Amino acid sequence: MEGKERVSLWIRNARVYNSFLKKFERANVAVRGERFYYIDRRQEIDFEAEEIVDVMGRYMLPGLTDIHMHIESSMMTPSAIAGCLAENGVTTVVTEPHEMANVKGLRGVEEMIRSGADTPVDIYYGIPASVPTIGDGMETTGGRIDFADMRRLLARPEVVCVGEVMNYRQIIQEKDLEITKFLRYLRENGIDIPVEGHCPSLVDLELAKYLYQGIDSDHTEHTFEEACQRLENGMFLEIQDKMLDEKLLQYIRKNGLYEYCAFVTDDTMADTLIREGHLNRIVEKAMEKGFPPEKAIYCATYTPARRMRLFDHGCVSPGKLADFMIVAEPVRLRPEMVYKRGRQIYRKGDSRQQKKGKFPKDFYKSVVVSEAQLAAFDGIHAPIQSGEVTVRAIEVSPHSTHTRGCHIRMPVKDGLLRWEESGCLLAAVIERHGKNGAVGIGFLTGACHKKGTVATTYCHDHHNLLVAGDNVEDMKLAVRRLFELQGGYLTVQDGKILAELALPVGGIVSECPAEEIGGNLSQVRQSMEKLGYEHENPIMSFSCLGLPVSPEWKLTDQGLINVKRGQRVSLFVS
Amino acid sequence: MEGKERVSLWIRNARVYNSFLKKFERANVAVRGERFYYIDRRQEIDFEAEEIVDVMGRYMLPGLTDIHMHIESSMMTPSAIAGCLAENGVTTVVTEPHEMANVKGLRGVEEMIRSGADTPVDIYYGIPASVPTIGDGMETTGGRIDFADMRRLLARPEVVCVGEVMNYRQIIQEKDLEITKFLRYLRENGIDIPVEGHCPSLVDLELAKYLYQGIDSDHTEHTFEEACQRLENGMFLEIQDKMLDEKLLQYIRKNGLYEYCAFVTDDTMADTLIREGHLNRIVEKAMEKGFPPEKAIYCATYTPARRMRLFDHGCVSPGKLADFMIVAEPVRLRPEMVYKRGRQIYRKGDSRQQKKGKFPKDFYKSVVVSEAQLAAFDGIHAPIQSGEVTVRAIEVSPHSTHTRGCHIRMPVKDGLLRWEESGCLLAAVIERHGKNGAVGIGFLTGACHKKGTVATTYCHDHHNLLVAGDNVEDMKLAVRRLFELQGGYLTVQDGKILAELALPVGGIVSECPAEEIGGNLSQVRQSMEKLGYEHENPIMSFSCLGLPVSPEWKLTDQGLINVKRGQRVSLFVS
Repeated sequence: MEGKERVSLWIRNARVYNSFLKKFERANVAVRGERFYYIDRRQEIDFEAEEIVDVMGRYMLPGLTDIHMHIESSMMTPSAIAGCLAENGVTTVVTEPHEMANVKGLRGVEEMIRSGADTPVDIYYGIPASVPTIGDGMETTGGRIDFADMRRLLARPEVVCVGEVMNYRQIIQEKDLEITKFLRYLRENGIDIPVEGHCPSLVDLELAKYLYQGIDSDHTEHTFEEACQRLENGMFLEIQDKMLDEKLLQYIRKNGLYEYCAFVTDDTMADTLIREGHLNRIVEKAMEKGFPPEKAIYCATYTPARRMRLFDHGCVSPGKLADFMIVAEPVRLRPEMVYKRGRQIYRKGDSRQQKKGKFPKDFYKSVVVSEAQLAAFDGIHAPIQSGEVTVRAIEVSPHSTHTRGCHIRMPVKDGLLRWEESGCLLAAVIERHGKNGAVGIGFLTGACHKKGTVATTYCHDHHNLLVAGDNVEDMKLAVRRLFELQGGYLTVQDGKILAELALPVGGIVSECPAEEIGGNLSQVRQSMEKLGYEHENPIMSFSCLGLPVSPEWKLTDQGLINVKRGQRVSLFVS
Repeated sequence: MEGKERVSLWIRNARVYNSFLKKFERANVAVRGERFYYIDRRQEIDFEAEEIVDVMGRYMLPGLTDIHMHIESSMMTPSAIAGCLAENGVTTVVTEPHEMANVKGLRGVEEMIRSGADTPVDIYYGIPASVPTIGDGMETTGGRIDFADMRRLLARPEVVCVGEVMNYRQIIQEKDLEITKFLRYLRENGIDIPVEGHCPSLVDLELAKYLYQGIDSDHTEHTFEEACQRLENGMFLEIQDKMLDEKLLQYIRKNGLYEYCAFVTDDTMADTLIREGHLNRIVEKAMEKGFPPEKAIYCATYTPARRMRLFDHGCVSPGKLADFMIVAEPVRLRPEMVYKRGRQIYRKGDSRQQKKGKFPKDFYKSVVVSEAQLAAFDGIHAPIQSGEVTVRAIEVSPHSTHTRGCHIRMPVKDGLLRWEESGCLLAAVIERHGKNGAVGIGFLTGACHKKGTVATTYCHDHHNLLVAGDNVEDMKLAVRRLFELQGGYLTVQDGKILAELALPVGGIVSECPAEEIGGNLSQVRQSMEKLGYEHENPIMSFSCLGLPVSPEWKLTDQGLINVKRGQRVSLFVS
């Protein structure tokens, strides 16, 4: 048996990560086709190989696996992000495309899958579970995902989980939703598939009720106590950047909970991706906070792969997919080479390649707005002819995407609101999916921009057109420009575009190179800051102003929403 | 939320095993229907419950899960063994019914599944991968499992794995077998299902070749070094009684390999089952050898459940199946109560119930032997007319089921062998499936019985009728009696049945109470010992004398087999 056997790839002189022993071992590694063939720890067998790479003592790690992320958060297409993932050593992701589903429904998901099918990394999908987030006359979306759609997606080989179940309050009240119908269907038919949760602040019996429905992970932000409750009740904990808390990491180490947590990115904006990296950056940060490298690697490779039942991913051992990276140091996950299914997909210094025009034509023509809708800005009718009225306004918070509701006095003349004199910005959400032409009007105050206009079609989750400004003409200019671009993010002041990013695919993502998207996004972000926006992530803050499941008051094309009550409220306090 | 909610079962004052923290915690546990609802660690919520059980500080453990076992090894039907499993706290098993498959093919598997469908424990199945073990004119079986059968079984909800792939030598030579065709089919279609291995002594590149085919567990007997190689290469290690080695258990502890190994029973004879218990006994033994109880429980519950992708089994947490047992001490797994899917299935002192007549009629009429076949004993023709010949005989080993080949000189008179004068026993394997009426003749020496006759239809894996004795008349009596019983195990001396166990279902299992099967089996065993059998398990030794994949020489209905060469050999040395 010790003859010169033929293999496709032979990595020599590596320090190979062993996922089972959680340590590095010196070995030569033979690959046959897509899979690892032999980890030769004695380094004694001489193969004949199509490709031999001597890595001269460098470290060989399984490719990273990010099981909770949303590609659209980077405002990129699957094809566009794949190269960025590869160069960061991320060889497998599970994305939940609820943003595109809100624009295009089932077709949105299917076209995302199709467009990413030929990328060098493995992109798996979660079934969007909450599209629309709330619906029921409180928001208009371009598409929805119902029970039948979920069943249809379940049959696809790229689909590995049910995506983020966001309507957790309704779930624990055992309301009859499309997603609860689907969860029941899965259970009654003995279909086992991971169900990704989203349940910030749920604890004790309420947390148990959520788990009882079969939703068994959470990736949202928690206190230490909340995180512990999740782990001790068998919930899989997905740790994103803002959850990298030393006390929590110590608790995981102390109790050896490496099977029950994984690092994830959730949302990564394009400029952060270009500047800092992807999942590799989260893992590095965990190590910087004292998490041992051998454990951190495990929680970003083999554990997440198994969470998603991707049993042949995430470790370097015979029979598993040959997905790996070569790094100089195990604490700095900046790969020199990355292989996927036995083929090199990245080598340091490589330039990235990506394809455009991967979506059907109507995806590039998804923003429908009319001049008639813009007329809604011109005169906001008050319930009195003259004097002063009390108006409900949204107070933007500087540190959170949650807002507060507040009351503002505004003058009225000739039956019209003189909002320009109130210090508030006029905000509008314009239905842009060609459904009903609705326009929701509201007012902003607080940490938002103080002057100029910001507008976008990247408006969670319905992705209608949100515009907020200090004068109607600039706002109209912004809307017209977004129509021309067929989606994007931009700022305007004094009749001029200050900064803009085009998002022409579904009005939410771009097929341009990552650097271009990241660069333009940075400019919009900086421009917003210059206009007075005071949030640590103005893009995230602004894009969430229309999200009707995020407290306290939000604006949709159907008007002002009191989120806790789940009701539309009038602009005027009577 | 803190009102008096209604649940079906409320276990109060328990010390509950937490699989994630691997420790016991005081809690009340609420069950709703089939599943755990809430683990109330603060013991503060007052439920209204259909059934309240105060366990007064006793220990609550997940039901044990045995993922590698063969029900037929206990000579019981699924229905017969279920009660025994329940009283030993075993709530879930994965069985691979290759014995019945050798008798009845696909129908054998399907009828095993059907017959056990209404038992109180969960019985899952592995697809028999090696039926017949070798075939190709070297043994006649009643049925076979081919690629199409495997695909058909794969579609059944009770099937969770591919069962024991025993032909490991052929596998690593990449021979074209039914099972290799099936493994390729699974991989090409991205179908993920655990594949149970069987590869004693394989190491290094050969072991890697086996893993490369996607076979990723082993439960056979190993040296410490062989076991370590399995673990470090990502092979799941199933630890049966004879592998409970202290050095290995220490290695597992030192490296925290609790995810990668599980305790299993493999084969448990009925008398051992009655006397010592089942998987609970293996776990107790591991604890006695210093394996910490909290880890031992984990490796017999949550780890094996996940190995078999039974993600809602094996732990006490919200949303999981309410399978559990109550014991007084966690180191003595003799349950006072056992619950399965929220319902009590055993209470100490309960008598066991089981059903008969669960199989189709032909399963009770599976032993076909003719007087013409018996005539084969009467005169064994030698290649000479008179003098002495050298005969190949099977030398039975006292400690192993492996045999050795040896040469014996025997007198010949009138062209017939005078074997009675040689000190050997005459042995015959009589084809009894109604296929071809073949009779294989051989001779036994060594640790087998020295006088009298032993006969059985429980003859691995083809389960033809094996008889070996010191005179032809007793042998004929034994065969006729087995025909009357339609299968069984018995001893005969001087024209009298000494002990017998009837195995009328497929000639290999019984629907009688476990105590009756165990008692009769014990009597047969003792009778064999009285007749001079010197093996520690004469039943196992005798039943393996026909197994043509177990070295060195074995006897089938097709004659004497040299196992290493995989060839039939002549009885006479020429």
